[in-house]
Amino acid sequence: MEKSVFQQVRDAFTPVLPVGLRTAVGIKEGEATTSVADQEVIKKMFPNTYGMPVVEFVEGEERGTDPINVGVILSGGQAPGGHNVITGLFDTIKKINPHSRLFGFLLGPGGLVDHKYIEITETYINDFRNTGGFDMIGSGRTKLEKEDQFEKGYEILKYLNIKALVIIGGDDSNTNACVLAEYYKMKNYPVQVIGCPKTIDGDLKCEQIEASFGFDTATKVYSELIGNIERDCNSSRKYWHFVKLMGRSASHIALECALQCHPNLCLISEEVEAKDLSLNDIVEDICRMVKYRSDRGMNYGVVLIPEGLIEFIPAIGRLIDELNDLLALHGKDYKDLSPMEQKQYILEHLSEENLKTFETLPDDVARQLSLDRDPHGNVQVSLIETERLLSRMVDAKLQAWKKEGKFNGSFNSIHHFFGYEGRCAAPSNFDANYCYALGASAAHLIANGKTGYMAVVRNTTAKPADWKAGGVPITSLFNVERRNGKMKPVIRKALVDLNGRPFKELVEHRDEWSKETSFVYPGPVQYWGPSELCDRTTKTLALERGGKA
Amino acid sequence: MEKSVFQQVRDAFTPVLPVGLRTAVGIKEGEATTSVADQEVIKKMFPNTYGMPVVEFVEGEERGTDPINVGVILSGGQAPGGHNVITGLFDTIKKINPHSRLFGFLLGPGGLVDHKYIEITETYINDFRNTGGFDMIGSGRTKLEKEDQFEKGYEILKYLNIKALVIIGGDDSNTNACVLAEYYKMKNYPVQVIGCPKTIDGDLKCEQIEASFGFDTATKVYSELIGNIERDCNSSRKYWHFVKLMGRSASHIALECALQCHPNLCLISEEVEAKDLSLNDIVEDICRMVKYRSDRGMNYGVVLIPEGLIEFIPAIGRLIDELNDLLALHGKDYKDLSPMEQKQYILEHLSEENLKTFETLPDDVARQLSLDRDPHGNVQVSLIETERLLSRMVDAKLQAWKKEGKFNGSFNSIHHFFGYEGRCAAPSNFDANYCYALGASAAHLIANGKTGYMAVVRNTTAKPADWKAGGVPITSLFNVERRNGKMKPVIRKALVDLNGRPFKELVEHRDEWSKETSFVYPGPVQYWGPSELCDRTTKTLALERGGKA
Repeated sequence: MEKSVFQQVRDAFTPVLPVGLRTAVGIKEGEATTSVADQEVIKKMFPNTYGMPVVEFVEGEERGTDPINVGVILSGGQAPGGHNVITGLFDTIKKINPHSRLFGFLLGPGGLVDHKYIEITETYINDFRNTGGFDMIGSGRTKLEKEDQFEKGYEILKYLNIKALVIIGGDDSNTNACVLAEYYKMKNYPVQVIGCPKTIDGDLKCEQIEASFGFDTATKVYSELIGNIERDCNSSRKYWHFVKLMGRSASHIALECALQCHPNLCLISEEVEAKDLSLNDIVEDICRMVKYRSDRGMNYGVVLIPEGLIEFIPAIGRLIDELNDLLALHGKDYKDLSPMEQKQYILEHLSEENLKTFETLPDDVARQLSLDRDPHGNVQVSLIETERLLSRMVDAKLQAWKKEGKFNGSFNSIHHFFGYEGRCAAPSNFDANYCYALGASAAHLIANGKTGYMAVVRNTTAKPADWKAGGVPITSLFNVERRNGKMKPVIRKALVDLNGRPFKELVEHRDEWSKETSFVYPGPVQYWGPSELCDRTTKTLALERGGKA
Repeated sequence: MEKSVFQQVRDAFTPVLPVGLRTAVGIKEGEATTSVADQEVIKKMFPNTYGMPVVEFVEGEERGTDPINVGVILSGGQAPGGHNVITGLFDTIKKINPHSRLFGFLLGPGGLVDHKYIEITETYINDFRNTGGFDMIGSGRTKLEKEDQFEKGYEILKYLNIKALVIIGGDDSNTNACVLAEYYKMKNYPVQVIGCPKTIDGDLKCEQIEASFGFDTATKVYSELIGNIERDCNSSRKYWHFVKLMGRSASHIALECALQCHPNLCLISEEVEAKDLSLNDIVEDICRMVKYRSDRGMNYGVVLIPEGLIEFIPAIGRLIDELNDLLALHGKDYKDLSPMEQKQYILEHLSEENLKTFETLPDDVARQLSLDRDPHGNVQVSLIETERLLSRMVDAKLQAWKKEGKFNGSFNSIHHFFGYEGRCAAPSNFDANYCYALGASAAHLIANGKTGYMAVVRNTTAKPADWKAGGVPITSLFNVERRNGKMKPVIRKALVDLNGRPFKELVEHRDEWSKETSFVYPGPVQYWGPSELCDRTTKTLALERGGKA
């Protein structure tokens, strides 16, 4: 691997460990926990891992430990800092006992099931310190949820004498980590399972989990780009930029970028749903803003769009649900129809309300909904280019307004979608420290015999030395939700809280941001330089933890 | 303007002036120059500004100067560092005489013609030091080339008692700056005109002009993003990323990013033209690479595409030329035809060779060529999404190969277009220093009574203190070319030199880069930190000036 100059210099960064994770690590156990909801059901489902206490690592007496073999898995989409979780884990199990060994399962949970792995050695790992990406062992999306997978996994764990497995992933992967922990405990298999909260989307958080790692870096990269685009927009003064941002369902990424960059508009899916807005409502809102600015000579602006928007528009959500049902029922015959006949079929079978929604959609989007299905027969919502859809509908409405004499400006749009640009950036100082501490915490949870825990690091708006590391029982995060028709224990996804401070901050300023040009240009992530710049957290974290934006 | 933390800290950066531009500035004049070609014609066209010497500023005796009023214009697309040219100019004319004044014409050359301007004061300018964007005074694309524009401009210059005008722009804007200088001199209007070499595209350079400003920063921003995408690609190992890069005709940006990031393939328009490759040749090349990697388990990779590619494919160029002629001749009737009839019309009228090319194009691209015209009736080549066009044609061919049993991998593509993301980034240390020195040089050219010069800074691979500042007569860069049917004096556009060291560096490694995964991850532009990281130049500049990549 040829290293860039940046990488050569960044190699030397030494993450700051919280005081509680330094030389002598003791453990402080709290009260027994209960799940956030559906306590009786969850307790019955997890008799061996329910009700355990939250734990915190503090300066204290350390017990010596026998060498231990640990396995690690990266699950799902990349997030900056994943490698540092692994280096923190590696360094700590070696510190606890130099004969400990670390194995990495390759390309995600599938590596465990298919027995594909490598041993992670000192020589190998050193090239990955403080780097972005998941290429140290690769990642994948295989869901670890069936007993035969658990058993296949146990075969290789037993073979490698692995006593603990660390699964680095999002809400689903951590849910599955807990199911696996419960299963191995129930079977009396001597393997502990520990989870780690990863996702740039920011939707895996709660009182105990202050942030999922990667959110900090990814939003800073996107904000760099949005700031650059805003400055371009404010220099040439002739384009409207429609920027879609990754983040699956939740709008945390869009919200954080808005707080950093002050765009003219930032749509928040959760608000669209709560207010039951239609696609047309959203388009009209944008048109009114474009007209307002145009009337004042400003034929330009920037609009942020969260990836999940389209599904959160209640009318579109209902349409998609009916389409999925309709085409599932009639899938076979339907497939043999010509595109024209398919459209006709849909027009004839949709309920009146959904038909109305369907008819408001531009042709190619309607076609995408009626034609392109994923292997499970579902509408492929993620393929819909919401940023283009919106700008086109805005354009059409403004043309209509022009004919009515209500608008006489110009409207030219440019589109962007940012996702892959930030998921593998080199972790910011925050993520580099946070992830390293998460890995170290995971190691101490293992050393203390814990299973079914997620590693956590709290008090993260303080200096890294003062962060509090520990673990939280995953069952305490569970509630029961319907998934694919079945009631399942899952970690509740943290969507944007419309009563939370980050959203309120947006609400407080957005009228001004839409009318004025209040762009802020955050610049690229800096790894060296003044601490107020290099070590700042996200605005979301600062606000959620009681600080200032 | 609310400033980001980055901006607050970056405000304090003090650009390093070359020694020759510090306290006492003297001037060293070289030999008389001649134009690069067509000397007799150019000499006749520019009797007052032809043959002047190259000048260099050196430590020496400075003459005191009366206060002078200067005007400045930003012309064309944004480039990082434009504001620093203006701060360098401002600080230097104030240093020469504190009563000097600077006026900025608004939104490009149009501001001069329409008499829209502001005075740039100390308070106003300080917010823009070391920032990206052209928002200090805005930019625009009005071409300054007609006598009545020159006369309208002179009215306001006279009114404001402006003795010198600095035009910051690309090859066309600098050409026009020289035409304006010649015109004012011919008319005995006491206004000097000085140009400054700006463009992220990198196509305004020669022995005297080592780089156009903005290229350094923009290519570093794009390389950051490409590196992040490469790392993502190498982590999930399931996508081919097709990345189109801004840069109009020349492929310098794509080439520089390739040298920084080592993608699997980087197309170079100039090579495509020289080798007379067809679209199909390019597609086959990509397919062979995809197959090679797929056969070895690598169903992923990264391809860089220069913006101008499509026009450089000779067959497509010829097709576009014939279509432009054909539809210009029959424009009126043609417009009234239905899309179907238009296509039919084209099929019936195209020459046999171009018809063949036309028929290889996917439907919607063919439609774009036959239907969508700009206001001058020309095909809108820039609207063609080459990155999608290529990946779709690759996909189609691989499907065909699959049926023939020649390919059995998978091919999933993702598309990106980077341009607006980098044009307004905060200037790198290189561009911040380079632009400040260009502005200071422009001021000294003015103080020395020069007109028809471009400010230049040379020896830029040395430390900034050792850079050599001066000026070069714009006429010396001219040759005569046919533009819109007329022979015109223009600065020869610097395309990628297929015998130059940067391209040879690519050629030397590209086979390895395509077969192996040799990605390099450059990281974001750093403004603080070790000098080898923060002050490094582009690979292109280093190689062109005899250094290592």
